[in-house]
Amino acid sequence: MASDSAARTPQLRKDSVTKRWVIFSPARAKRPSDFKSKSPINPNSDQQQQCPFCIGHEHECAPEIFRLPADNPDWTIRVIQNLYPALSRDMDVVSAQDPLHQNSDSGPGRVVISGFGFHDVVIETPVHSVQLSDLSARQIGEILVTYTTRIRQLMIHDVIRYVQVFKNHGASAGASMSHSHSQIMALPIVPTAVAARLDSMKEYFDQTGNCSVCEFKSSKDLLVDVSAHFVSIVPFAATFPFEIWVIPLDHSPHFHELDADKAVDLGGLLKLMLRKMALQLNNPPFNFMVQTSPLRDSASQLSHSHWFLQIVPQLSVAAGFEIGTGCYINPVFPEDAAKVLREVKVS
Amino acid sequence: MASDSAARTPQLRKDSVTKRWVIFSPARAKRPSDFKSKSPINPNSDQQQQCPFCIGHEHECAPEIFRLPADNPDWTIRVIQNLYPALSRDMDVVSAQDPLHQNSDSGPGRVVISGFGFHDVVIETPVHSVQLSDLSARQIGEILVTYTTRIRQLMIHDVIRYVQVFKNHGASAGASMSHSHSQIMALPIVPTAVAARLDSMKEYFDQTGNCSVCEFKSSKDLLVDVSAHFVSIVPFAATFPFEIWVIPLDHSPHFHELDADKAVDLGGLLKLMLRKMALQLNNPPFNFMVQTSPLRDSASQLSHSHWFLQIVPQLSVAAGFEIGTGCYINPVFPEDAAKVLREVKVS
Ligand SMILES: Nc1ncnc2c1ncn2[C@@H]1O[C@H](COP(=O)(O)OP(=O)(O)O[C@H]2O[C@H](CO)[C@@H](O)[C@H](O)[C@H]2O)[C@@H](O)[C@H]1O
Ligand SMILES: Nc1ncnc2c1ncn2[C@@H]1O[C@H](COP(=O)(O)OP(=O)(O)O[C@H]2O[C@H](CO)[C@@H](O)[C@H](O)[C@H]2O)[C@@H](O)[C@H]1O
Repeated sequence: MASDSAARTPQLRKDSVTKRWVIFSPARAKRPSDFKSKSPINPNSDQQQQCPFCIGHEHECAPEIFRLPADNPDWTIRVIQNLYPALSRDMDVVSAQDPLHQNSDSGPGRVVISGFGFHDVVIETPVHSVQLSDLSARQIGEILVTYTTRIRQLMIHDVIRYVQVFKNHGASAGASMSHSHSQIMALPIVPTAVAARLDSMKEYFDQTGNCSVCEFKSSKDLLVDVSAHFVSIVPFAATFPFEIWVIPLDHSPHFHELDADKAVDLGGLLKLMLRKMALQLNNPPFNFMVQTSPLRDSASQLSHSHWFLQIVPQLSVAAGFEIGTGCYINPVFPEDAAKVLREVKVS
Repeated sequence: MASDSAARTPQLRKDSVTKRWVIFSPARAKRPSDFKSKSPINPNSDQQQQCPFCIGHEHECAPEIFRLPADNPDWTIRVIQNLYPALSRDMDVVSAQDPLHQNSDSGPGRVVISGFGFHDVVIETPVHSVQLSDLSARQIGEILVTYTTRIRQLMIHDVIRYVQVFKNHGASAGASMSHSHSQIMALPIVPTAVAARLDSMKEYFDQTGNCSVCEFKSSKDLLVDVSAHFVSIVPFAATFPFEIWVIPLDHSPHFHELDADKAVDLGGLLKLMLRKMALQLNNPPFNFMVQTSPLRDSASQLSHSHWFLQIVPQLSVAAGFEIGTGCYINPVFPEDAAKVLREVKVS
């Protein structure tokens, strides 16, 4: 700890998209350019013999939903059921249809709904040693299109209100499997944080006439990179050090409306961000999350909403203060993180 | 994974205090009684030579605020400044007095306040190898009273709106120092999650005429233990497996009004909970957080509020799903966790 940046004084910033306060504390940081992961991923240290996600081990997996190319033993991507699903696709749908059903047997204040939903795994490559950032922009684009295809299938179920696409990479980012994969969870509720994000964006829109995500497109100090259809930035009140948002230049509420061309463009920018993070931050564990809109909101409810991809390298631990308050301490100012990431040379 | 409890189907529950949804997923769990920490604390494995929190090393610490007993070189508890404070106590108070000051230079939607505040460390024992749960009820009571003394000092500052007391124990619970300690942060804002908790409790109170925390006092299935003035429970929609809340039987909004007798009683129940967790869960890393009310709210605003102590053993990693949605996956039903904890025999 202790550094040059200690000369800067701490600030609290409120995110205009999530409405959450974040404390920026340069005194708790090394210099932004010295930040490195202490638990980097070493893709070669890992046993692959036992991996059910590898090509040839399909029979060790829970049932397949679809693969690319279809019916081809030489697949490039598989979407399968999660063997230990958090939600159950087998439950009686009816029991989930009254989402605010008050379970009166169980006592006052007990709001319960049955856990109907879908929990899928996307195997991103047949090869154990290949990481997402090793794939080409086109291949990453195909994975992104796979997410959208699966979301469109899940939308058929009336009770599904929100679909969360996310990736865990590396043990300290929560990954229990090292073979490159991501997950798709379809929920019978709109999670509270998603509802709060939508409310916050609506409030901003009503006050200013602008979209709070679109505003970032003109934030030169927060800019990392730009492609034909996307821009990557560090948000002004980033929760985590070196957090990145990849934002579509078009104002659009739903990730699943991404088309194939834009998916390849996004694939290229995502690859660039992952490579920059790996080079700059010592191959850190990371998560990414698609931040999209609920499925069944009306066009007018959604007019203020704008989806984006949130990428979070895991460099610190959320502890008592963060659990207690929901407020995070970020030692790196977003302008500094953006500058560092902007300047990383990727060969 | 995979177990007996997989026979139970998943549920979503909404916490009446935090208003957050939690997914209960027995299919992702071992049997509740088999839950063990994978990174237990071994208090003897640790080098103490270099520890600034040990008695005799006071000169290696940031300045002291007070100690118990006062002016005694044989101290039992010290409150000191944090050497790497997240907020600065030296800043011009005035610059923090307009908490919603819009920093117009820096662009639209950029809400910034200067980071004035206090960040203290409470050294809970002079002896490196002593853990909090090794202390007597009376000694733990003195630590709790120390928190209240310090909060009452901090309240003098008009800009301080909320004080968060928390403890990190063990590296995977975020602790960078192994000598037993806790922290106190005084903030110029009310954190969003705290405001949401207060709003949620008010809404519940307005709808039912009851306090949502008081309701837990009569929840036999969630009960762990009870003392003269407190009850410990697993909340109905616990965010984390084996999360415990210690609730004062009296409906009262502010932790810092705890008196010395009740502090000893709470010390005893807290000690029992920590020992039960250590025995049942293999000495897990943990956090505890005092969940109290903002300092400057009026009596009528606070009439629906009830403080409690939240204890969270660290048994799982928050990953992409949780970061994306704010919604947690808990593999252990609260009734099951409460039963397991209720039945732990502490000698
Ligand atoms: N043979 C097989 N066939 C099909 N599926 C298989 C399989 N073997 C394993 N799986 C599934 O594959 C998934 C791999 O997921 P990850 O490694 O990204 O993290 P996981 O979901 O375990 O938990 C992380 O992410 C979740 C959600 O964020 C957090 O709750 C948790 O704490 C964190 O560790 C697991 O969900 C697992 O159930
Ligand atoms: N000589 C000295 N004198 C005075 N103070 C000294 C000192 N040496 C160290 N300290 C301070 O002592 C504190 C010890 O705190 P903890 O070990 O509980 O966690 P820490 O605050 O480091 O971070 C954890 O908790 C915070 C808040 O939850 C998270 O943001 C973070 O990611 C997590 O690791 C540190 O804050 C440190 O600055």
